[in-house]
Amino acid sequence: MIRMDTLHDLPTPCLVLDRPRLLRNIARMHDRAAELGVMLRPHLKTPKSIDVARLLLERQARGVTVSTLAEAEYFAGHGLQDQFYAVPLAPDKIPRIAALMRQGTELICVAHDLEALPLIEAQAREQGIVLPLVIDVDVDQHRSGVAASDPDFLAMARAIDASPHLALRGIMIYAGASYEARDTDAIGALAERIRVGGLQAQALLHSHGLPCDTVSYGSSPGTYFARSMEGITESRAGVYPFQDLFQAGLGACAIDDVALSVLTTVTGRQASKNRLIIDAGGLALSKDRSTQGTGFDAGYGLVCDEQGALIPDLYVKSASQEIALITTHSGSAIDLSQFPVGRRLRILPNHSCFTAAGHGEYHVVDGGTDVTARWARVNGW
Amino acid sequence: MIRMDTLHDLPTPCLVLDRPRLLRNIARMHDRAAELGVMLRPHLKTPKSIDVARLLLERQARGVTVSTLAEAEYFAGHGLQDQFYAVPLAPDKIPRIAALMRQGTELICVAHDLEALPLIEAQAREQGIVLPLVIDVDVDQHRSGVAASDPDFLAMARAIDASPHLALRGIMIYAGASYEARDTDAIGALAERIRVGGLQAQALLHSHGLPCDTVSYGSSPGTYFARSMEGITESRAGVYPFQDLFQAGLGACAIDDVALSVLTTVTGRQASKNRLIIDAGGLALSKDRSTQGTGFDAGYGLVCDEQGALIPDLYVKSASQEIALITTHSGSAIDLSQFPVGRRLRILPNHSCFTAAGHGEYHVVDGGTDVTARWARVNGW
Repeated sequence: MIRMDTLHDLPTPCLVLDRPRLLRNIARMHDRAAELGVMLRPHLKTPKSIDVARLLLERQARGVTVSTLAEAEYFAGHGLQDQFYAVPLAPDKIPRIAALMRQGTELICVAHDLEALPLIEAQAREQGIVLPLVIDVDVDQHRSGVAASDPDFLAMARAIDASPHLALRGIMIYAGASYEARDTDAIGALAERIRVGGLQAQALLHSHGLPCDTVSYGSSPGTYFARSMEGITESRAGVYPFQDLFQAGLGACAIDDVALSVLTTVTGRQASKNRLIIDAGGLALSKDRSTQGTGFDAGYGLVCDEQGALIPDLYVKSASQEIALITTHSGSAIDLSQFPVGRRLRILPNHSCFTAAGHGEYHVVDGGTDVTARWARVNGW
Repeated sequence: MIRMDTLHDLPTPCLVLDRPRLLRNIARMHDRAAELGVMLRPHLKTPKSIDVARLLLERQARGVTVSTLAEAEYFAGHGLQDQFYAVPLAPDKIPRIAALMRQGTELICVAHDLEALPLIEAQAREQGIVLPLVIDVDVDQHRSGVAASDPDFLAMARAIDASPHLALRGIMIYAGASYEARDTDAIGALAERIRVGGLQAQALLHSHGLPCDTVSYGSSPGTYFARSMEGITESRAGVYPFQDLFQAGLGACAIDDVALSVLTTVTGRQASKNRLIIDAGGLALSKDRSTQGTGFDAGYGLVCDEQGALIPDLYVKSASQEIALITTHSGSAIDLSQFPVGRRLRILPNHSCFTAAGHGEYHVVDGGTDVTARWARVNGW
């Protein structure tokens, strides 16, 4: 008989992944995508794990999305051969991309700067591949991309379509500003604006006889709260399997939907300062402060017991490299008798993508404290 | 003949370490420590690399300081057997500590909570070791520790001294508030207050017939700008080999002393938004915003050319997971002809400890762009 670890046996800090919550979050998005009639192309930048990816691909998924070539190579090695590398393409990364393509992986890339196209084309020609590209269309002035009204947009589409070394697949759009929305109604309104902007860009290409089979749409809340996905060919939703406190603050999930947490140990208490000291600091929790200034400021995380139940009023107030301090939101005194040195706690993260990236594996629990699986992550580039 | 990589050949993003700056920073601290007559016990939580550690140990060093047991095990494996594990001790970590001690590594640990001592003693007894401890004395109300005026302080010292399984080595103090100081004079004044507080705590132990051979003092700027180190037996300075923009903002170094940078590639330009897009995002740069609100706000980092020369006015304004945006502080237009897609840049970090932790190795350069060594890091716990 193999002895099973429990959360009490693990060296802390480490990542815990609650499988029932994970499965519930996935099912909820799958149901919603089915209702909207949109295929998912889940963004694996959050889990970076083949075990999670397999769960995401069980229903209406159309390939996957990745954020690094390390992910692309890892997932290709696990047989996922329909991938979208959804960050602005640096031309000097094309040799690694070409190696994957020669091994049978389709890796769709992103064009977003007209002047970069000759460099991309030259690399594709040198590598002897036909590189599939989508153009990043900036509908809401988010972080990258070109506006459809910018003459560069049509010029890029024409240049890609004309090249024997490049293939124009379509466009990508991203509801980045949904992260500035105040409620789910505002997210829905924004999502609709992004969708319409994407379809206008597609119509523009079609009116010039240019192909645009793909209209790839991004963000989990933008998908979940969309009013319609008509015309959208795939959604790159990413954070939904894990969720996090920022998503909860948006109203995109409940706090007890958050499937990812950092297991930590109480190493000390300071009654005079009303605080607990834990062994998960800024490296284990991440320094991401997404909830700052949102009206749902969770410091560096909210606090759960070892079983994953939220302990009201507690939060992580500050974090240095390997230490963090827990205190109360209300200012009322922590009952220190409940938190002896050695007690295990679980910290819910502000931003799952960043917190997970500090760790090499997930310890999977099925709602309790028995560790029923260990799933590896692919970090780095 | 072995072909040497240059920075232009490396996959980006990745870490670059400028050896001349590193050596200059180390020499400067060694000279200052010699002048102050204090031994260094360098804190390896910043470099986490045996190659850097060896440079730190070439002159008056008295062992090393570590922040995780992964570091302790790695450095012990490389022969560094005089270590101080300078974070609050979780009793359940003692079996791993005992394993190191049985292999000949001295690993001094930290006691900071009276009620944890029976648990620590029980583990030490069970493991059959005599665990060396210092007490964390909180002079300036920083993050952890016990005030010398608190009755718990003497009670802890007595309990440690009385146990056959524990050995009282002395105390540790930390000039944490030096990070709130506004200039190097203020840092010096604070450092002196911390030093005097530490010596008072030592005198209290001595007046009760208790041993206190060690008075271990922390922080790089607190050491460099100290007025005196009389009575201090060791300094755990840590960030000084690399420095960073936060230290530069404090006046603890110049910007061109910063030895660590993140190599990145320009992937796009947006003239209408006056910005460059790079392939180093929040995971490569870290989400640490130490310089926020300091009057020296560097966003997510300042921008250098491939040779490491600062490009005035540019800074990293925002960072998502794998993308960041560079713009100008002044609002004046970036000369885009200087920044074609594919150009390599180097980003100086807010906080070296956090930025380095996102990466597995350093690419060492000797002031130019040839990579003359690769040094591994030990991340995780």
